[in-house]
Amino acid sequence: MSVDIKKYLEEKQQLVDGYLEANLPPIGTPPTVLHESIRYSLLAGGKRIRPILTVAAAESIGPPPKALLPVACAFEFIHTYSLIHDDLPAMDNDDFRRGKPTNHKVYGDGMAILAGDGLQTMAFEWCSRVDLVNDIEPYVQVQIIAELAHGSGNQGMVGGQVLDIQAENTKVDFAEIQNIHAHKTGKLIRAAVRAGALLSGANLTQFDQLTAYAEDIGLAFQIADDVLNVTGTREELGKDANTDAERGKQTYPSFYGLKGAKKLAQECADRAISRLSSFDEKADPLRGIAQYIVSRRN
Amino acid sequence: MSVDIKKYLEEKQQLVDGYLEANLPPIGTPPTVLHESIRYSLLAGGKRIRPILTVAAAESIGPPPKALLPVACAFEFIHTYSLIHDDLPAMDNDDFRRGKPTNHKVYGDGMAILAGDGLQTMAFEWCSRVDLVNDIEPYVQVQIIAELAHGSGNQGMVGGQVLDIQAENTKVDFAEIQNIHAHKTGKLIRAAVRAGALLSGANLTQFDQLTAYAEDIGLAFQIADDVLNVTGTREELGKDANTDAERGKQTYPSFYGLKGAKKLAQECADRAISRLSSFDEKADPLRGIAQYIVSRRN
Repeated sequence: MSVDIKKYLEEKQQLVDGYLEANLPPIGTPPTVLHESIRYSLLAGGKRIRPILTVAAAESIGPPPKALLPVACAFEFIHTYSLIHDDLPAMDNDDFRRGKPTNHKVYGDGMAILAGDGLQTMAFEWCSRVDLVNDIEPYVQVQIIAELAHGSGNQGMVGGQVLDIQAENTKVDFAEIQNIHAHKTGKLIRAAVRAGALLSGANLTQFDQLTAYAEDIGLAFQIADDVLNVTGTREELGKDANTDAERGKQTYPSFYGLKGAKKLAQECADRAISRLSSFDEKADPLRGIAQYIVSRRN
Repeated sequence: MSVDIKKYLEEKQQLVDGYLEANLPPIGTPPTVLHESIRYSLLAGGKRIRPILTVAAAESIGPPPKALLPVACAFEFIHTYSLIHDDLPAMDNDDFRRGKPTNHKVYGDGMAILAGDGLQTMAFEWCSRVDLVNDIEPYVQVQIIAELAHGSGNQGMVGGQVLDIQAENTKVDFAEIQNIHAHKTGKLIRAAVRAGALLSGANLTQFDQLTAYAEDIGLAFQIADDVLNVTGTREELGKDANTDAERGKQTYPSFYGLKGAKKLAQECADRAISRLSSFDEKADPLRGIAQYIVSRRN
């Protein structure tokens, strides 16, 4: 593979962070505390996997349009809003995230709810920016917004979160576990990749192959996350470790054992890479990301 | 005026309710409890003022396209999600809404947060429906989505909610009160009207006049709401009455007295109607709505 994936991820992370910093409402924009609270969680050193996937998917087809970064960032907004809401006492009740106290621990539950609400809206705001019309076809813009909505809504991330809450302390079978993860984590990752494909004008075959790639890495990502919850330390994860077992949550390691789960994650990554066999070296970052997802330590 | 506004509102309310019932995810769609929770709050007999404003604004220009109802309903989704989140213990901690226990009282705080999150996404999902492209220009569709986002986000409804929370039990001046309401209530009403204007292809002059109308009725609406909080009974309002005073909230009646606030609301309604002087009888429903807003009992 022609790409140093660690370097690639660092560069793109900086690209995304730089764009966010330059384009978020400036510090001091009223309502001040809302924007502070949003920046607190958004600029807390996330890995930016979802926006980087949008970038890498777009680049796997050809040079992406300038609309790339606002669209890519929208997926980070959705992800961050979901973390803020998931961490609330009414949901997972987590005190730490990305190595810092969770949003509601700093700003209070009410402001954390509103920061999440506002972040979700901002995702759609950035994707519907009317000035993007000079850069991409409005019809493509509508398709991207639809992808963002499907990936994050009732049949996507929010739906998966509901299933996940319902499954806690309940004996659920493995098919149900897969269903939960496909929705909770998989659908937004899938949408991020497909948005990138739409941005670069992928043809239908490419679009389907990238979709299959995305579904495979989405699953790999969740299995790896479950594994890390067992094997990671709080320092590595930036949040409490081994919380799944404490909560009686059914996970891939609890079903397959640690070794079995790791093997399954690697199989998913390999399958994802095989989906891109007809893509040239422009897809090397996507291939690298698939492997990175199952090798990461946080 | 050529229109019986009570009859008009009833007809359009039924139109919106019928469209919602036919197009929401059917009962039993997984995740079942999420969709139950959404239906519980959404189909609780709301007045549908925002979607009706979209309809009436579109009709004031000319025959609206078929995309009218999904777009109109999106504004009801945003409104309902904001009510569900506002009622949470972490926010206003209200037990009753539209005459029924609030969403979190029935489904729990976690599910209420997710129902609100999912409703917000659904607003953008319905507006970005790709099949609408046969009916409206994609560029117009993007503009409508942008309106929806601006009206409901950090510089709109969510921003106003933040300011409102910060102002509780604080001495704020009247300009700040106006600023809070302009954001919390006004911006979404404005967006609902402007979306209707965009749907029917309003020209720039019409668009500006409808925007001015919307800003006036938005203010009238909030003043009337404050008045009703003082004068209404729990039976009329479907929720606890006189809660603002108990919470030490600064309101129009607390600044202007009850009589002064009522007079101010009527002046806003009159000004709104005057904005439509160059519109023909197709704008009579909008004129009727302006008067209705300040005359209603709930």
